[in-house]
Parts: sequence; C-alpha cells; structure tokens
Amino acid sequence: MTMQLSCPSPILQHETVQMAHGAGGRLSQELTARVFMPHLGNPVLDQLDDQARFEAEPGRIAFTTDTYVVSPIFFPGGNIGELAVNGTVNDLAVGGAAPRYLSAGFVLEEGLPLVDLERIVASMAEAAHKAGVLIVCGDTKVVQKGQCDRIFINTSGVGFIPPGRDVSCRNLRPGDAVLLSGTIGDHGMAVMTTREGLSFQSTIASDSAALNGLIAEVLQVAPNVHAMRDPTRGGVAATLNELATSSSVGIELDEAAIPVREEVRGAAELLGIDPLTVANEGKVLIVVPAADAEAALATMRAHEHGREAAIIGKVTEEHPGMVVMRTPFGSRRIVEMPLGEQLPRIC
Amino acid sequence: MTMQLSCPSPILQHETVQMAHGAGGRLSQELTARVFMPHLGNPVLDQLDDQARFEAEPGRIAFTTDTYVVSPIFFPGGNIGELAVNGTVNDLAVGGAAPRYLSAGFVLEEGLPLVDLERIVASMAEAAHKAGVLIVCGDTKVVQKGQCDRIFINTSGVGFIPPGRDVSCRNLRPGDAVLLSGTIGDHGMAVMTTREGLSFQSTIASDSAALNGLIAEVLQVAPNVHAMRDPTRGGVAATLNELATSSSVGIELDEAAIPVREEVRGAAELLGIDPLTVANEGKVLIVVPAADAEAALATMRAHEHGREAAIIGKVTEEHPGMVVMRTPFGSRRIVEMPLGEQLPRIC
Ligand SMILES: Nc1ncnc2c1ncn2[C@@H]1O[C@H](COP(=O)(O)OP(=O)(O)OP(=O)(O)O)[C@@H](O)[C@H]1O
Ligand SMILES: Nc1ncnc2c1ncn2[C@@H]1O[C@H](COP(=O)(O)OP(=O)(O)OP(=O)(O)O)[C@@H](O)[C@H]1O
Ligand SMILES: [Mg+2]
Ligand SMILES: [Mg+2]
Ligand SMILES: [Mg+2]
Ligand SMILES: [Mg+2]
Ligand SMILES: [Mg+2]
Ligand SMILES: [Mg+2]
Repeated sequence: MTMQLSCPSPILQHETVQMAHGAGGRLSQELTARVFMPHLGNPVLDQLDDQARFEAEPGRIAFTTDTYVVSPIFFPGGNIGELAVNGTVNDLAVGGAAPRYLSAGFVLEEGLPLVDLERIVASMAEAAHKAGVLIVCGDTKVVQKGQCDRIFINTSGVGFIPPGRDVSCRNLRPGDAVLLSGTIGDHGMAVMTTREGLSFQSTIASDSAALNGLIAEVLQVAPNVHAMRDPTRGGVAATLNELATSSSVGIELDEAAIPVREEVRGAAELLGIDPLTVANEGKVLIVVPAADAEAALATMRAHEHGREAAIIGKVTEEHPGMVVMRTPFGSRRIVEMPLGEQLPRIC
Repeated sequence: MTMQLSCPSPILQHETVQMAHGAGGRLSQELTARVFMPHLGNPVLDQLDDQARFEAEPGRIAFTTDTYVVSPIFFPGGNIGELAVNGTVNDLAVGGAAPRYLSAGFVLEEGLPLVDLERIVASMAEAAHKAGVLIVCGDTKVVQKGQCDRIFINTSGVGFIPPGRDVSCRNLRPGDAVLLSGTIGDHGMAVMTTREGLSFQSTIASDSAALNGLIAEVLQVAPNVHAMRDPTRGGVAATLNELATSSSVGIELDEAAIPVREEVRGAAELLGIDPLTVANEGKVLIVVPAADAEAALATMRAHEHGREAAIIGKVTEEHPGMVVMRTPFGSRRIVEMPLGEQLPRIC
C-alpha cells in the first residue's frame, strides 16, 4: 500500500463530522460533494445557488416546516432522515396539496460518524423518491460536541393545492364520519421501547410513511373531504381535540373501532401511556361527509398504507370542542387534550 | 392581592421552557398562544392548519433554507432571531426573487428562560415586518437540558422571481464589475469578540439586515445583474471563489477598494483571522456588466444599507476559477477558498 501524500483531500482524513464541515469553506464543500449530493442530487438542487428555483403549478401554494429531534436517531422501522421527509410530505398532503419540493437543514454534532450521517441521508433520498418529491435546497451547520444531540434535521416543504379544493381543520360538520388509516401508537411506542431498552417489545416498528399517494386516491373517490390531519405529537387525542375546537363541533369515538396492535397496547400499559396520545408518523385522520365514508374507507383499505383503516367515530353537534369516547362496555369518557409530558423527542 | 387558584393556566407556572412545551399537547398550544402568536400572528399563520396556504405570484418560485446556531444568541447589533429572518430573506433576494413567506422551526433547550425566547421572537417579528415578509408556519421542539445549546432556529423562505429575470452564480462574464454593498467582517467579528470576551472591541456591531429593498432598487437601474450572493460563512473569500468556479472565470480584486472598519481590522488581526474570510449578514456582492457598474453603485450608496458600497474588482478571462488580489503595494496574491476552521457557530 502506498500512501498518498500530495494534495490530500482534507475530508478523507476524517471519519467523523468536524467543526470545519459547518464553516462554509472547503470542508463544507467537500461534505456536500461527498455525502449530500451523491444521494440527494437532482437537477434543481445541483444548481447550488443560494435558493432553489422551480415553476409554480396551478392552484394555491402550500408551505410547511418541521424540525426532527427524535432520539434515538435509528429506531425499528426507520430513522430520523426518512421521518423528516415523510413527516413534511404528510403535512402538505393533509392540506389537499400535492407535495413537490423539500428543503433539508442539518444541525450536526461534532464527532458524528460520517457513516451514520450517510445512512440517514441515503434514507432521506429513498423516502423522497418514494414520495415523489425533490429535495431542492439545504443547509449544514455543525456545533461542538455536547451542544446538540447527534443530529437535528429541519425539512420544509412546498406543494400545490389544486383550484377548488378546500380541506381545513375548520370544516368539520355534524354528521361527518371520522376515518383513521390504520393502527395507532406504532411510531411512538417503537421509539419509546427502544429508548427504554424494552427489547422484548422489539416487534414494534415505526409506521413512518408518506401518505400523499393514499390521500390522492381518497380525494378521487371523495373529493369533498372536509378535513385531514396526521396525528403526530399528542396522537389521535390531540389531533381530534384540535379539530373539534377549530370547527366548534363535538367528536364521538367508538373505542372498539380504533385499531391498536397488541404489542403497542402492552407496551403502552407498561409505560402508563394512553395509546390515543402516542405519536404516529404514517397515519392520517380523514373527516368526510357520511355519504362518502364507505367509498373513502374502501379506497384506504385497498392501499398499502391503509390496510387496517377504520371508521372510528362521527362529528356531533353536541359538546362542541370536546371529544367523547364510547367504550365497549357502553360507558362514555372524555378524551382530553394531553398535557404533553410523557413522550419527549418522539419525532 | 388575591391568588387565582381555580383552573390555572399551566404555562403561568413556568418561567422557562419545559419538555412538555414540545410535546404537542396543551402546553405546546399555550406556548404558541402566549409567546409565538402575539408576535408572529398574521392572517396566514393564524389558520394554524398543518400547512400555510397562499396564492402564487407571477414568475418562478424561489425556495431556500438556513438553520441558525449562532453563539452567543444575543450579540452587539442583533440576536439569533432577527439573523434568522434577515439571512433567509437575503438568500431569496440574491436570486432576484421578491421574498414573501417564511417558516420558523425552533429547537429549544429545556430551561431556556421564556423572556429570552420572547425577546428573540419579538425581534423576528420586527425583522419580518421591516423586510415585508410574513412568517406563515412554524414548529416547536424541545430537547432536554444539555442536548442543544439554548436555541436553534431554522427559517425557510419562499419568494417569486419575476418572468425574464436570470441571476445566477453561473452568469459571470469577463469584464463584469464586482460590487460590494459595504464593510466586511462586521457580523463575524461582533460575534467573535463577544464570545472571546474582547470587550474593548465592543464597538463592533453585527451588520445583520434584510437586503431585499436595496437589491430591488439596484435591479431597477441595472436589470441585467449577472449574479448576486450574500457573503455569509466563509466571507467574501469563499463567495467569490464559488462564483469564479461556477462561472469558470477569474476574479481580480483591488485590496484598497474593499471597505473594512478599523475596529474589525484590529480584532481580526488580534485573532489571526483574514477579514475576507469572515461572515457578513447584511452585505451583498453584486456582479454587473461594466456599463451598469456606476449606476448600480450610485443606487447602492443612496440606500441606508449601501452607504459604503464600492466597486471592489472585476471578472477576468485569465485564471478561471481563481480569485486574485492586487495589494496597495502593487503585488498580487491568491485569495484562497478558506478551509473553514476558525469561525464556528457564527450564524
Ligand atoms: N446538507 C445539504 N444538502 C444538500 N444541499 C445542501 C446542503 N447544505 C447546503 N446545500 C446547498 O449548498 C449550497 C450552499 O449552501 P450554503 O448554506 O453554504 O449557502 P448559504 O445559505 O447562502 O450560506 P449560509 O448558510 O452561510 O447563509 C446551497 O445551494 C444549498 O442548497
Ligand atoms: N413556533 C411557532 N411559531 C408559529 N407557529 C407555530 C410555531 N410552532 C407551531 N406553529 C404552528 O402551529 C400549528 C401546529 O404546529 P405543529 O408542529 O403542532 O403541527 P404538525 O407539524 O402538524 O405536528 P408535528 O410537529 O407533531 O408533526 C401549525 O399551524 C404551525 O404552523
Ligand atoms: Mg408535522
Ligand atoms: Mg445555508
Ligand atoms: Mg401534522
Ligand atoms: Mg444563507
Ligand atoms: Mg410541526
Ligand atoms: Mg447565501
């Protein structure tokens, strides 16, 4: 083996993220060239101007942002990278928008192994490809060891809402049906059981997935969808409370109809957490006029991300702003807005 | 004084950021209602849907992102909040776009005083107002004490590039004039001297400012601007090297023409740093055909953010990809792309 001594590429000397990788000089360029561009590159990003440029599509623009700080960064069923892509795609899709362009802003802790970073970036690229979006601009900052926890990723997203579509958290009407695309709590419990070292629960995997495909199909058969939301932090409990408040209506749930995996129910019980308050990253709540419920449900069930979809409740005129659940034993309990203390850094 | 004991608002019990403020439940809502909305509220943000919605304007869309991790978060001349607004506004403006909509993604460290957060948010609102942009969507995550350094802010931005405008780092042509809107190194040296406790240098203030107003005026008198960039991390040295490389041209600088404040020069010398490599947050490099140089310069000088603007060099056919500087003594030296080790967490 001969050693290459002349004009060495500085980055090749590093297996981990260095402060200089975030300083805007040669090492920044090399990190972009070696780790980011090979995975994320596309004709828009490749321009590397200070801003990405693209054509508008007909309709209004939808714009959203989320920062991901999940711990651990790798968990059963996914990692922080694909989560960051899917989550932002979903926040666009639930507005009835077609998600198109994403930004990616990285905060890296000095010392992060470049193999970990590359694995994360590769899965972002794969998730973007699956969802049919392009990552078109980025930013890379590095902070000293101990000043962030490994990696935080912000993704913002731009999409287009076709003319005439109006999906909003203020659109719920008494009589509407509330549909859920599948089991609840999988993502949050996958992260929590990994973090707490509850390895016997290792069969729980995150549900992280982009739902724009499923949602587009539902909008085909039920173009009058009133509202959609992805029940992330705070879970189904928080999301339905927000919908009820925003639309000044009540929501009545049928506990028996809400799909929960056995392992998730078990882990949640062990940790003293109500699965209704646990974050999902590949589920959507869809509120449609009752007449469209069966068609929407059938479409969801026919989709790979909606196999276990269910009609879980309905919108009522009574108890505006409140979510009430009918238990299998015939009693009723209020589903409260969670306070929010039990599940830190879940996404 | 009577104590209010019934139905206390949980957040009123806290003077600092709690983990639950980031968990998507009631405390998240209250942080938004108490700290974010009063300052940032506007008709688009107020909808609080999962995505902001707005109409497209004619032309192409420009989209950019930056995360801000500057330390310290308060420094002479500004703080991390206004920096986050101005920086992203500038990355849109240098593409010839009119900046319109911003997102704001916060990562907060548990224990951050709410008064500090509020001060930062208030100055974001003020900066957005000055720049004529709306903050239309946001996200708030909280991590445990010790897992981030007080506060990181991502802002992404959307603007519109009028039909026919083409400003790009690949457009430099031999003969073009290189203009700079003012003194270099102010931001970086304000942060560094604060951080290093060089208080006798305390007259140095950050130049953080939104430049879309100045740039719009220049485009009026010199619509054929070839390229613009804000020389942030890596300073003028990095930015000009990138422009030279992207356009396969040389750049020749006149050292005597580059404005540097005496205090900045002194502090830079003390710290062993070349001011050319120091970050600016309210400066722009504009490359125009020679025929437009004087008109552009006069317009810049007439603007509050361009009083000390100067023509600092020209584009050459010789030495493509290289930046060369003529010193006041008649010698020439290469201005290299900085490696990037000297100025961590400057923005
Ligand atoms: N992690 C990344 N992945 C993909 N592209 C990136 C990444 N980081 C930066 N880029 C791209 O590289 C180019 C330069 O980014 P950079 O952040 O240096 O520019 P800037 O925002 O103008 O500077 P600053 O961040 O100092 O304000 C941009 O086109 C940006 O989209
Ligand atoms: N710091 C903030 N400033 C202004 N608006 C904010 C802020 N944080 C959140 N928001 C707004 O509050 C609403 C709810 O935000 P939230 O982050 O809870 O939604 P989400 O992204 O759908 O959920 P999650 O972040 O769990 O995926 C959105 O309209 C968002 O734009
Ligand atoms: Mg979200
Ligand atoms: Mg950047
Ligand atoms: Mg959402
Ligand atoms: Mg920038
Ligand atoms: Mg969010
Ligand atoms: Mg820039």
